[in-house]
Amino acid sequence: MDLISSLQEVTKLSHLYYSRQWMFATAGNLSTRDNSSHTEFWITASGKHKGELKDTDFVCVSVKDGTLLSAKEGLKPSAETSIHQVLYSQMPNVGSCLHVHTLESNLLEFGVGKEEGYREIPIPPIEIIKAFGIWDEKPSLTMPVFYNHTDVPTIANQIKRYFTTVGIPKVPFLLIEGHGPTVWGKSIAEANKHLEAVHFLLQVMARRV
Amino acid sequence: MDLISSLQEVTKLSHLYYSRQWMFATAGNLSTRDNSSHTEFWITASGKHKGELKDTDFVCVSVKDGTLLSAKEGLKPSAETSIHQVLYSQMPNVGSCLHVHTLESNLLEFGVGKEEGYREIPIPPIEIIKAFGIWDEKPSLTMPVFYNHTDVPTIANQIKRYFTTVGIPKVPFLLIEGHGPTVWGKSIAEANKHLEAVHFLLQVMARRV
Amino acid sequence: MDLISSLQEVTKLSHLYYSRQWMFATAGNLSTRDNSSHTEFWITASGKHKGELKDTDFVCVSVKDGTLLSAKEGLKPSAETSIHQVLYSQMPNVGSCLHVHTLESNLLEFGVGKEEGYREIPIPPIEIIKAFGIWDEKPSLTMPVFYNHTDVPTIANQIKRYFTTVGIPKVPFLLIEGHGPTVWGKSIAEANKHLEAVHFLLQVMARRV
Amino acid sequence: MDLISSLQEVTKLSHLYYSRQWMFATAGNLSTRDNSSHTEFWITASGKHKGELKDTDFVCVSVKDGTLLSAKEGLKPSAETSIHQVLYSQMPNVGSCLHVHTLESNLLEFGVGKEEGYREIPIPPIEIIKAFGIWDEKPSLTMPVFYNHTDVPTIANQIKRYFTTVGIPKVPFLLIEGHGPTVWGKSIAEANKHLEAVHFLLQVMARRV
Repeated sequence: MDLISSLQEVTKLSHLYYSRQWMFATAGNLSTRDNSSHTEFWITASGKHKGELKDTDFVCVSVKDGTLLSAKEGLKPSAETSIHQVLYSQMPNVGSCLHVHTLESNLLEFGVGKEEGYREIPIPPIEIIKAFGIWDEKPSLTMPVFYNHTDVPTIANQIKRYFTTVGIPKVPFLLIEGHGPTVWGKSIAEANKHLEAVHFLLQVMARRV
Repeated sequence: MDLISSLQEVTKLSHLYYSRQWMFATAGNLSTRDNSSHTEFWITASGKHKGELKDTDFVCVSVKDGTLLSAKEGLKPSAETSIHQVLYSQMPNVGSCLHVHTLESNLLEFGVGKEEGYREIPIPPIEIIKAFGIWDEKPSLTMPVFYNHTDVPTIANQIKRYFTTVGIPKVPFLLIEGHGPTVWGKSIAEANKHLEAVHFLLQVMARRV
Repeated sequence: MDLISSLQEVTKLSHLYYSRQWMFATAGNLSTRDNSSHTEFWITASGKHKGELKDTDFVCVSVKDGTLLSAKEGLKPSAETSIHQVLYSQMPNVGSCLHVHTLESNLLEFGVGKEEGYREIPIPPIEIIKAFGIWDEKPSLTMPVFYNHTDVPTIANQIKRYFTTVGIPKVPFLLIEGHGPTVWGKSIAEANKHLEAVHFLLQVMARRV
Repeated sequence: MDLISSLQEVTKLSHLYYSRQWMFATAGNLSTRDNSSHTEFWITASGKHKGELKDTDFVCVSVKDGTLLSAKEGLKPSAETSIHQVLYSQMPNVGSCLHVHTLESNLLEFGVGKEEGYREIPIPPIEIIKAFGIWDEKPSLTMPVFYNHTDVPTIANQIKRYFTTVGIPKVPFLLIEGHGPTVWGKSIAEANKHLEAVHFLLQVMARRV
C-alpha cells in the first residue's frame, strides 16, 4: 500500500474510533510506517479533533531516533511519538501502531508503582484472543501494564527496556495504566483487528471484576 | 428467496452486526441454506472484515458431510463451518444460522467442564422470549451451554450428540462458553429476530448477576 | 396534524427506536389517535420488523371497545392493542401511546405478585422528571408497575381498574414487569419526549441498585 | 468566528449530543458569546427538541445582567440562562458554555445538602484530565458539585458566590447533583473538547464506585 492510501486508511480509522468514543477530546494517536523507506513513520499531529482529522494532519518521524523529518507548518508531532518510535524500532515487521483511550482501560486499576514501572497482568482465555494469532486451548497469557509517567519519553524508555530484557509481548499490545491501550500489527488492517479484540477483552476484564 | 438475494441479506446483517460490535476483529460467521438445492449451505469465508463483507465472500458447503463444494480462489470456509453443518443436518427446516461474539455472552461464566461437555442453564422468564415462539406464562426454560474446545469439530460433535440424545433445544440457540451465541431460524429474517432476542436476554442475564 | 403525517411520524420513531435497540426482534408497539374522528386510533400491525416499518403497517381500532375497524389484508393488530385502547379511552387528551422493550426496564426486578396485580414503586427525584411537567423540588413520586400476565387483556383490565380506582398516574407512563414501559402524551412529540425521559430515569434506577 | 457560523457550530453539537443521548427529552442548553459585541451571548430557546434544533432557535441575552435582548416570536430563553450568565460574566475569556444531562452524572450520588449548597469532590488522576490543560503527574484535583435547587436563579447565585469567594475552578466545569455537567471554553471547539473529557471522567467515576 502506498503512503497516501495508508494515511487515508488511518484517517478513516480515526473517524471511526472517534464515533466509538475512543478518541474523545483529541485523545489518542495513530501511525503507519512508510512502506517504501521503512525507516520513517507518519503519526497524527498533536491536538487535532480526531473526528475531523484529515489525511494531511500527519508528520513524518525517523524510526531510528524519533527525529522529526517533515511536518507541514503548524503541525507538531503527537506528545506520544516516542512510544511509537520504540515500537517501530523494536519490531521491524510492524507496519502500524494505534493508541486510543477506552473507558474500560480506565476502569481497570492495577496499582502499578512508579518505581516498579510495569507489571504483568493475567488475561482471561476467551475466544477473542484467537484474533492475536494464539490458538492454544485456555492459554495462560499476560499483558504488560506500564506506569503512566507524565514525562512520555520515560514511558517510552520503560517500554524499550521491557522489549530488550523481557522480549516482545506474546500479545500485540500493551497498556498504560489510567490511560489506554497501544496495539500494533503488520498492516493497518491487522492493527485495527488487534485493537477491536483488545477492546472486547478489556470490556470483559472490566465488567467481570 | 433466491440465492443471490439471500447472500445479499446476510451480507447486510454482517455490516449491521459489525456496527453493533458483535463481529469485531473478524469474529463470527453467518450462513444461509440454498433454498433450491436444500442440500447445500453458504457460509462466510474465513478471516474477512465483517464490516466490509461482500456478497461474494461466501463458500458453498455440503449439508450432509461438510465437504467444501465451491469456493472462489483465495476463500477458505470459516473455522466454525462444522457447527453450522451439524445444525443444518439436524434441523431440515432451518434456513439460516448466525454466530456472533457479544460482550454479554463473554461476561457470563458457567464453568462448564471439558469432560462434562455442556450444561443446561436456566433463563429468566422475561417477555422477550416470546420472540422464540414460546407463549407460556413464566416458563422454566434452559439453554444449552457448551465447552469451548479449541478443536472446533469436537464442539460440533458435542452439539450433534446433544441433538441426537437430548433433542432439539426448545430455544432456537445455543451458547459456547467464553465465545458467543449461535442462533437459527426458518429464514434469515427469523434467525435475525432470534439473535436480537438472544442478545436482549443475555444482556439481562449478565447484568442481573 | 393529519393522519398520514401522524403515521409517518410514528414510523420514523419506530426506525429510531429500533436503532436504539428498544424494538429488537419485533418487540414493542406504537399508536396514534386519529385527530379527525378522535374515536379511532392506529396501531402498528403484529410481527413487523420495527427497523423496516412502513407507514402502511398500521391498523385502525375503536377507542371505545377495541374493535378492529380497518386493516389491510394480512395485517393483524398488535397483541397489546387492548392496553392502548384502555389508555385512549381513560385519557381523552392523549394523542399517542408508545410501548418499547428497554434493557433497563428488564433489569429492574420488583417481584410484583400475580394476585397483587400491581405495585407503586418510588422513583428518584432527578432533574429529568421535569420532562413530565413536574416542577416540585425533590418530589416523592411513584410509578405503577403491573404483573406481566400472558393474557394481555388481563393486563389491560388491571390497568383499567387502576385508572378507575386509583386515578391517572402523576407520571405519564406505566411499567409492566420484565417487559417494558408504556408512555403517553398529548401529541406524538410529547409522548416521545416522555419516553426519552423514562428511559433516562430507568437507566438511573437500574444502575443505582 | 462570526455569529452565524458560531450558531451553526452549536446547532451541530446539539444534534451530535442528542444522538449520544445527552440531550434527551429537551434536556440541556448550549450557548455562545457574541464575539463582536462580547457583552451578549446566544442560548438555545426553551423546550426545543435538541435533535431537530435549528440555528434560528437561539435567543440573545445580556452578559451583564441576563436581560433578554432579542428573541424571535415564540422563543423563550432556556430556564437555565442565569447559570450561563454567571459563567460569562465571571470569566471574560469564556466563549461558549455547554450543559447536558448524562447518565453517569446522575448515577453519582454525593448527598450535597440544600443549606450546604456545594461540595468539592475529588476526581481520579487519569490521563484524560490533560484535556483540561493540567499536566501535573497524578494531581489531586476536585470539582465543585452544587445542590439542585428547583429555583434556577438560586443555583446561579450559589455559583456566583463560589466564583467570587473560592475562585474559578481549576477544572473547566461544574456539576449540579442529579442533573448534569456544565462546561466552558475559550471557543466552542474547546468547550466541546472539555465536555468530551468530562463525560469520559464521569463515566470512570460512576463505574468505579
